[in-house]
Amino acid sequence: MSRWKCVCAYDGGAFAGWQSQPGGRSVQDVIEARLREVLGAPVRVHGSGRTDAGVHAAGQVFHFDAAWTHGATRLAAALAAGLPATIQIVGLRPAAPTFHARFSAVGKVYRYRVHLGDADPFTRPFVWMRFHPLDLAAMAAAAAVLQGRHDFRAFSAGPAEEGGGTVRDLRRLDVVRRGRSVTFTAEADGFLYKMVRRLVGALVAVGEGRLDAARIASLLLSGERIAAVQTAPPQGLCLLRVRYRRRGIAPPAAGRSAPANSVA
Amino acid sequence: MSRWKCVCAYDGGAFAGWQSQPGGRSVQDVIEARLREVLGAPVRVHGSGRTDAGVHAAGQVFHFDAAWTHGATRLAAALAAGLPATIQIVGLRPAAPTFHARFSAVGKVYRYRVHLGDADPFTRPFVWMRFHPLDLAAMAAAAAVLQGRHDFRAFSAGPAEEGGGTVRDLRRLDVVRRGRSVTFTAEADGFLYKMVRRLVGALVAVGEGRLDAARIASLLLSGERIAAVQTAPPQGLCLLRVRYRRRGIAPPAAGRSAPANSVA
Repeated sequence: MSRWKCVCAYDGGAFAGWQSQPGGRSVQDVIEARLREVLGAPVRVHGSGRTDAGVHAAGQVFHFDAAWTHGATRLAAALAAGLPATIQIVGLRPAAPTFHARFSAVGKVYRYRVHLGDADPFTRPFVWMRFHPLDLAAMAAAAAVLQGRHDFRAFSAGPAEEGGGTVRDLRRLDVVRRGRSVTFTAEADGFLYKMVRRLVGALVAVGEGRLDAARIASLLLSGERIAAVQTAPPQGLCLLRVRYRRRGIAPPAAGRSAPANSVA
Repeated sequence: MSRWKCVCAYDGGAFAGWQSQPGGRSVQDVIEARLREVLGAPVRVHGSGRTDAGVHAAGQVFHFDAAWTHGATRLAAALAAGLPATIQIVGLRPAAPTFHARFSAVGKVYRYRVHLGDADPFTRPFVWMRFHPLDLAAMAAAAAVLQGRHDFRAFSAGPAEEGGGTVRDLRRLDVVRRGRSVTFTAEADGFLYKMVRRLVGALVAVGEGRLDAARIASLLLSGERIAAVQTAPPQGLCLLRVRYRRRGIAPPAAGRSAPANSVA
């Protein structure tokens, strides 16, 4: 038995989320079914965290253990060959026995795309269409307030699901407009349930004049969940990258638990 | 009753082609069903031409007649509101009673996208993945041979379907590489059945060293259909634009029949 680390991309619109489901229509279910075919034995796949139904990934990471002696290239090819076009194996390599896709993660990067106005059928599955002008300067000011280490309770979907508390280090929250496309990039040590989508919902509310940076700051302090902070729909969200320490450097003990509770 | 000209976009992967089908899963069927709901009466929609199952459109044009007195903006909104996300109404306006989406067309522009190597799940539905290097210079030379007014019988799927003969004026055939994406743009007065996909198949064969410009020239002269000229798969193809003369200028009689027999 040896451990393998795999990076994959998927079209979230085609699946019932990452995490295994009774119906078997999750990304994890489909990958596990294919690995079982390739390896001839049941395989349990461990993802870096869940992604909700409809959320996409360009760089989701998972690990698994398998008795395979033909090298990473052949394993990647065998795995990829039996997957639907909606899942891509981006990379696969041997991992240390101590590597864990979830517990070893030290950061995650998500992108969220908003489209101003009606998008074409090729763009619609990957954006949130908004039909009001957005004040980008106001959004940038509010994003600056949100960046940093805070209690993000006001921007999570519920504290009961969070074993590791609601403090996260939001290292980056950018808003960039290019034509009719507004792209949010968020990076943190880990994200609370639906946190990225609620941060985007809050920033869009700011851009549309329904919230402002001062109110965002007070929400961070109070932890209050308010109706004006919508949860942006899943199809605009994409898990871009999961960060790990370079091999050979052990993660600090304090850093292990936050990503463990991270979902988006 | 007045005539309406509509431009629409669709994700061809979601439909059984443009043209009405017994199962009702064509783009035309879905649009006609929605127009019937909006107008309260059966409506026949006339497209600029068929697109095959899996072929996309960014600028398909159709016309229809309707007794509607609330203006183009409201008609477009009502039509769009009941369509799936895979169809977009790009524009709608009143047309002259003599306008015909198919017979008035004087040109069409198609784009075909090839992706070199494995594409991500967001790109795969819109490209043909090829896993061999392409000689772009050789392809450009062959494309230059194909441009112009020729008998394209060797690049059609069958003469029996072509009432208007097999001579077409291929005004433009560009090949542009950008990173791993190779984009073909083809413009003509009209295209034979599967002609764009067979032109692309021929150029890719040239790029991979299985054909050359001299052989392409001899195929244009002989009209011979050979196995080396593959029909590129539908998902890489997109109908970008249908060209019409500016309003007020009658199309020449000679120009009316070619696009009428044009399908791709």
